[in-house]
Amino acid sequence: MGTIERRGIMERLDNGEVVIGDGGFVFALEKRGYVKAGPWTPEAVVEHPEAVRQLHREFLRAGSDVMQAFTFYASDDKLSNRGNTASQKYGCTNINAAACRVAREVAQEGGALFLGGVCQTPTYLSGASKEDTKEIFRGQMGAFKDEGVDFILCEYFEHVEEAEWAIEVGLETGLPVACSMCIGPQGDMHGNSAGDCAIRMARAGAKIVGVNCHYDPFVSLEAIKLMKEALERENLKAYLMCQPLAYMTPDAGKQGFIDLPEFPFALESRICNRWDMHRYAREAYDLGVRFIGGCCGFEPYHIRAVAEELAAERGRFPAGSEKHVVWGGGLKMHTKPWVRARANREYWENLNPASGRPYSSAMSKPDNWGVTRGNEMLVQHAHETTTEEEDLVRGIKGKLKMACCQHHQETKKEADLVAAAQAVTETA
Amino acid sequence: MGTIERRGIMERLDNGEVVIGDGGFVFALEKRGYVKAGPWTPEAVVEHPEAVRQLHREFLRAGSDVMQAFTFYASDDKLSNRGNTASQKYGCTNINAAACRVAREVAQEGGALFLGGVCQTPTYLSGASKEDTKEIFRGQMGAFKDEGVDFILCEYFEHVEEAEWAIEVGLETGLPVACSMCIGPQGDMHGNSAGDCAIRMARAGAKIVGVNCHYDPFVSLEAIKLMKEALERENLKAYLMCQPLAYMTPDAGKQGFIDLPEFPFALESRICNRWDMHRYAREAYDLGVRFIGGCCGFEPYHIRAVAEELAAERGRFPAGSEKHVVWGGGLKMHTKPWVRARANREYWENLNPASGRPYSSAMSKPDNWGVTRGNEMLVQHAHETTTEEEDLVRGIKGKLKMACCQHHQETKKEADLVAAAQAVTETA
Amino acid sequence: MGTIERRGIMERLDNGEVVIGDGGFVFALEKRGYVKAGPWTPEAVVEHPEAVRQLHREFLRAGSDVMQAFTFYASDDKLSNRGNTASQKYGCTNINAAACRVAREVAQEGGALFLGGVCQTPTYLSGASKEDTKEIFRGQMGAFKDEGVDFILCEYFEHVEEAEWAIEVGLETGLPVACSMCIGPQGDMHGNSAGDCAIRMARAGAKIVGVNCHYDPFVSLEAIKLMKEALERENLKAYLMCQPLAYMTPDAGKQGFIDLPEFPFALESRICNRWDMHRYAREAYDLGVRFIGGCCGFEPYHIRAVAEELAAERGRFPAGSEKHVVWGGGLKMHTKPWVRARANREYWENLNPASGRPYSSAMSKPDNWGVTRGNEMLVQHAHETTTEEEDLVRGIKGKLKMACCQHHQETKKEADLVAAAQAVTETA
Amino acid sequence: MGTIERRGIMERLDNGEVVIGDGGFVFALEKRGYVKAGPWTPEAVVEHPEAVRQLHREFLRAGSDVMQAFTFYASDDKLSNRGNTASQKYGCTNINAAACRVAREVAQEGGALFLGGVCQTPTYLSGASKEDTKEIFRGQMGAFKDEGVDFILCEYFEHVEEAEWAIEVGLETGLPVACSMCIGPQGDMHGNSAGDCAIRMARAGAKIVGVNCHYDPFVSLEAIKLMKEALERENLKAYLMCQPLAYMTPDAGKQGFIDLPEFPFALESRICNRWDMHRYAREAYDLGVRFIGGCCGFEPYHIRAVAEELAAERGRFPAGSEKHVVWGGGLKMHTKPWVRARANREYWENLNPASGRPYSSAMSKPDNWGVTRGNEMLVQHAHETTTEEEDLVRGIKGKLKMACCQHHQETKKEADLVAAAQAVTETA
Repeated sequence: MGTIERRGIMERLDNGEVVIGDGGFVFALEKRGYVKAGPWTPEAVVEHPEAVRQLHREFLRAGSDVMQAFTFYASDDKLSNRGNTASQKYGCTNINAAACRVAREVAQEGGALFLGGVCQTPTYLSGASKEDTKEIFRGQMGAFKDEGVDFILCEYFEHVEEAEWAIEVGLETGLPVACSMCIGPQGDMHGNSAGDCAIRMARAGAKIVGVNCHYDPFVSLEAIKLMKEALERENLKAYLMCQPLAYMTPDAGKQGFIDLPEFPFALESRICNRWDMHRYAREAYDLGVRFIGGCCGFEPYHIRAVAEELAAERGRFPAGSEKHVVWGGGLKMHTKPWVRARANREYWENLNPASGRPYSSAMSKPDNWGVTRGNEMLVQHAHETTTEEEDLVRGIKGKLKMACCQHHQETKKEADLVAAAQAVTETA
Repeated sequence: MGTIERRGIMERLDNGEVVIGDGGFVFALEKRGYVKAGPWTPEAVVEHPEAVRQLHREFLRAGSDVMQAFTFYASDDKLSNRGNTASQKYGCTNINAAACRVAREVAQEGGALFLGGVCQTPTYLSGASKEDTKEIFRGQMGAFKDEGVDFILCEYFEHVEEAEWAIEVGLETGLPVACSMCIGPQGDMHGNSAGDCAIRMARAGAKIVGVNCHYDPFVSLEAIKLMKEALERENLKAYLMCQPLAYMTPDAGKQGFIDLPEFPFALESRICNRWDMHRYAREAYDLGVRFIGGCCGFEPYHIRAVAEELAAERGRFPAGSEKHVVWGGGLKMHTKPWVRARANREYWENLNPASGRPYSSAMSKPDNWGVTRGNEMLVQHAHETTTEEEDLVRGIKGKLKMACCQHHQETKKEADLVAAAQAVTETA
Repeated sequence: MGTIERRGIMERLDNGEVVIGDGGFVFALEKRGYVKAGPWTPEAVVEHPEAVRQLHREFLRAGSDVMQAFTFYASDDKLSNRGNTASQKYGCTNINAAACRVAREVAQEGGALFLGGVCQTPTYLSGASKEDTKEIFRGQMGAFKDEGVDFILCEYFEHVEEAEWAIEVGLETGLPVACSMCIGPQGDMHGNSAGDCAIRMARAGAKIVGVNCHYDPFVSLEAIKLMKEALERENLKAYLMCQPLAYMTPDAGKQGFIDLPEFPFALESRICNRWDMHRYAREAYDLGVRFIGGCCGFEPYHIRAVAEELAAERGRFPAGSEKHVVWGGGLKMHTKPWVRARANREYWENLNPASGRPYSSAMSKPDNWGVTRGNEMLVQHAHETTTEEEDLVRGIKGKLKMACCQHHQETKKEADLVAAAQAVTETA
Repeated sequence: MGTIERRGIMERLDNGEVVIGDGGFVFALEKRGYVKAGPWTPEAVVEHPEAVRQLHREFLRAGSDVMQAFTFYASDDKLSNRGNTASQKYGCTNINAAACRVAREVAQEGGALFLGGVCQTPTYLSGASKEDTKEIFRGQMGAFKDEGVDFILCEYFEHVEEAEWAIEVGLETGLPVACSMCIGPQGDMHGNSAGDCAIRMARAGAKIVGVNCHYDPFVSLEAIKLMKEALERENLKAYLMCQPLAYMTPDAGKQGFIDLPEFPFALESRICNRWDMHRYAREAYDLGVRFIGGCCGFEPYHIRAVAEELAAERGRFPAGSEKHVVWGGGLKMHTKPWVRARANREYWENLNPASGRPYSSAMSKPDNWGVTRGNEMLVQHAHETTTEEEDLVRGIKGKLKMACCQHHQETKKEADLVAAAQAVTETA
């Protein structure tokens, strides 16, 4: 970790290097006690910067080349949505600036880059105008620019239109802009294919495009594959990035893991292990992805597995490998001889882990509402959901059941099914 | 968290309070990049105290009333076992003292107690004498005493004999001594029943007795139940403590999760969720357990779930509940209406989570070696396992297979089966 | 099949031979369209004797040494219970006599013995007197005697008291009497242990005792093991018989598969395959069981697997092996080479079959009512259940839910848990 | 069953009626002891006609409108393939004629039609010429014509080319010809799409086209859907027929259940229950399929479920419903009140059955060899596979493993994935 170098993101990629991203802050910090599931906003950067700093350090140690400031959902509209008081207490600009400072501090400890990110907004979902939506992005981007981020990431968009608008604002900073959408092989919520989304992101000016969140690594790579093919067809040059979930989601529909019944408080049995991540890193690399990271569920050890799988290509192991011998080698030091016998790649690569849950099944049926921008139920509200509203939703849920099944069968497209199949295909 | 009070552990228990323990440091810090799986020793307290401190703070915030210094396996023999250089680099005393200081610092931030712990030793397993084994414990206990711990915990013993010796050394400090064994309802590795183990721990002078590690919460409570009945039968007074795994282990045999094929790198699909911990906390409380904590796999949010379940009994919520509404209430602030519909207890309490793994089964077959103290293969070695030794183990493994199956069927006793059944019984 | 010999059942057993029973007629003929699930009575012997004859022939061909007349539930009270008109249409005696004739005819084709059986009665369950209950048995036994059966089987009793009464009536015929109960390792519905049940059956005069129905082969063998130990303890001589389900039931409670949610119309995914039956036959033989057959779910090919596993001990293969090479050898003649590669024991013995059902779990939660003789809900009625009664039952079911869980946990005894564990232990 | 009417197959279909087929003879008779797994040839029609007759009667009673003579694989080349001596013992013509006579006899008992069928041949697979292959078909068709069958079925073809040749021979008889292929949504082994296969079968002269065997009902219906769309696109008129497996196969690849590791001796846990068949019948009917039957695994009760689901459309219940009340109604006569509570549609329609197998997974990985016509390994041989050949296959299997995975991922097309998804989508 000794070398202090600050070559930019584009220099690194143009040089043929693999850039390793970090993991998921909202889920990791929710489990550590600093983020509230539901609003998922990052006021922890002001309230408990030491906790955020520690998580950055762990990812740095695990091999991350970039420190992404914890600015997820830190737009002014989200910070005041449905009972959230973070905007009022701390202010949008302060939160974004504080996040940048923590990220920068840790990045400087290890020669990493640092960046700020924006994502989908309640404003857009409520049906507001292009200019109103862009103003929301400008609220965050200004802070990024002031704090000297190395590049901008627009991520977690369900609609490519909103992604384009975010890219446009990002470009106003003069910095390189990357953009990833939370879509699978089925494409976005307006019916644009994954390939078309990639084309539009690249044409809007993003130098790096891809997907993040919503699907497991293997479903996500299917989407990336479709993006790659589309870009090549159109002779567009853009680097590919992939930052998937660390939860297995072969059964997720168009809105990804949000719709799984286990979201967000019972996903444990779906968590990928480190060997899944070795496979992910290898398949991503072979597909040509050069920005390889993670999203919700990715803990430092998952990123370390990515860095270890690609150690030969990158010419180095991450600092954290000081405490981890590849493919379970550390078990050679275990007290019990039969555990020492597991200290090899063949053992772990071929193991199908049991769940220890005899009453649980392999797959769930997602909710599959398919509701999107323009639907009344998605409009932003400052107050928390009332009981009356909850009852309404449940009633609608009942009625939609049959219709949705129908809808589901009709819209389930080949691409997401390829992804689903991939997701359950293991190398064994 | 405002009140600064330092009433001792016995005062609290005598006063009828529930004391909430913390979670598992070795597994949590392994995932964060600071502990090596295999040796599992805690030199991180010297190498990266900020990482250890942060984890203490998270447990404090989650509701832990005690900060256990990260001294697991920090005995001089273990720190130099099978290639481990920690002893040589830092020294056993330094490691134990450093761990105490970090724990004390955080404890003082929140009115918590702090303690030091010792556990099973390679010395005992190698067949050494009582006095040699006790000397190993004294190496750690001295540091605990010097650093002013509030009480001593002897934990993770597979043989009640070694536990007794540890208690004896603990009592030399003049401090209260708690003791828990890593056993299930089947009892210890020498064939002593769980009830007899409790009796012997209490008679040796432990004021608090119970189990930790090796089994999931529900199997562990079965062992505790047997202990409770035995203590009552003998009119022995001791408080009960339970600090189980956060991994589902209905299929584990006599050596617990160590023998499961997924140990230690593919346990993800077995991780308990927060609702499992609500059930655990309630069942533990109803059984009369008053020291309720966790071991490997327990993350801060698991401890918070325990504290939230017992909020009424304790008269307070933990600090971390600032970011967590009980029973999923935070989802009322979610953007999607169908996720808002999950903001209630009934939903989460009745959900059987899917694994997302169509090629995985519900249960595994444990290794079930049943090898214990005195066996050649368990003798301590300073060097790492060689390839020759590994081959030998695999060869023996093959030969033992049939014999072990036989053995397994004969020794599988009622108590661990009760536990196994409990483990898979859910409230739905 | 050529040798025509009619040595009696006791001669064969005294000679150290293994007697192979047949499979389950009610379930097999329900699927073939001749028996009604619900009443389960055998009027098919009058209505469609050719269908019953064919099934007898298949079992004979598969290796059965005894042809059990299809007289299950053919007592006069059952034939007129809850809307059943069979008694009125055909008469109890006619049904039993017709069943005997069909069985005898086929038995004579292959040197097999033939027998008549009685089982639990609505009369007993309604709380009637000993004499009234015995009169019901006499109604069937008279026909058996007249038709010249080789021996009597009293089977499928949930209460050892009723079994004793049946044995007493059986002995009045002067023929050898066998008796098996539909219990698992937990014992009968009145709280008598499996061991005590065996002792009482033997003392009542049964020469062959054991279990049938309600549990899978491996759970059933656990019950048999307890019976064997009890008989040895008391120095009682009786041969052991086992005629289990061909459905996997590791999760069944005290009333067996009746209480599983899948009973009786969705048990398919639990059906044992022929390799499970090889294991069953071997384990039964090794335990000393010498009357080895099957009950509900056992099809001819399951019995053939038993006969093939014990071919060396018996000195012969069954006639049906003309169309079956042991351990999959017939696949050597398959068109596809990769299927030919499965023509060996190792392949089949180590295969854990997938269910092809990603939404299904490994285990179910049984109903566990635990209602028994004397309960108002069990009293015999001539009319079918009315809607009002159904509603009542559902209401009670809701109320009993919590209480039953409680009850379940308290009464779940070691023996049935041993059985449960056995049931899920495979040789792989 | 009273009405004796013999309107032809085309009259019935042209009249808008639903024709219900029968189930699978080879698998049913293998379990009953009369067919050998591996060669799967139907010499039982000569050796044990009473067993074949009884199975016909059960299907008739279950609602089948057509009795298919048991002539599967009864071509002269197959009857003498890989050690089979049936051709030599009985002669191809005798077997086909005997099969027709048994089918006709039972058909006449219930106003059913009767037909003869041909299927894929070792001759074609060995790469023989068109004329040689057609001669093989003529060997069977002659017997069909002589025995007066009502129509001809060409079925179980993996290559549409061979299906066309069979249809051509069939037309020579002057009878109506139906044709179904054992393909899924992926199409045939030569890469022809399911839609193209339907077009070619219709153009070759088949009046009824569809699929049989190899996939479960829901995957099969996906293939049918593609066929229907293609026929409509080309303005071709042909009735649709579907005769799928009664085994769940969401995980099967291009060669269907043959490639699943459980084939053919461990498929039990995949068996569809009667409620699955209700859903199949409804979905088939709604898709426009008017020849609805089953193949391997379909037992009489499965066919009865089809007939009961379509009772309103057909204006009658099958004879076998005398012993079956729709949707579990017979349970109203059960002794236990909690079982009586299951006597309703809602209960069974929403039940996800457990497997009772905690060590088994939801899905398997198919072998996926993808070897087809022209490959050396598929050439016909008169002798049984030798040990040397077996070793060779295993060796090849190992080497092909990596290549096949690759192949599998590349060839896994959208259509079969749609089918796979459908297969696991249940109505609940």
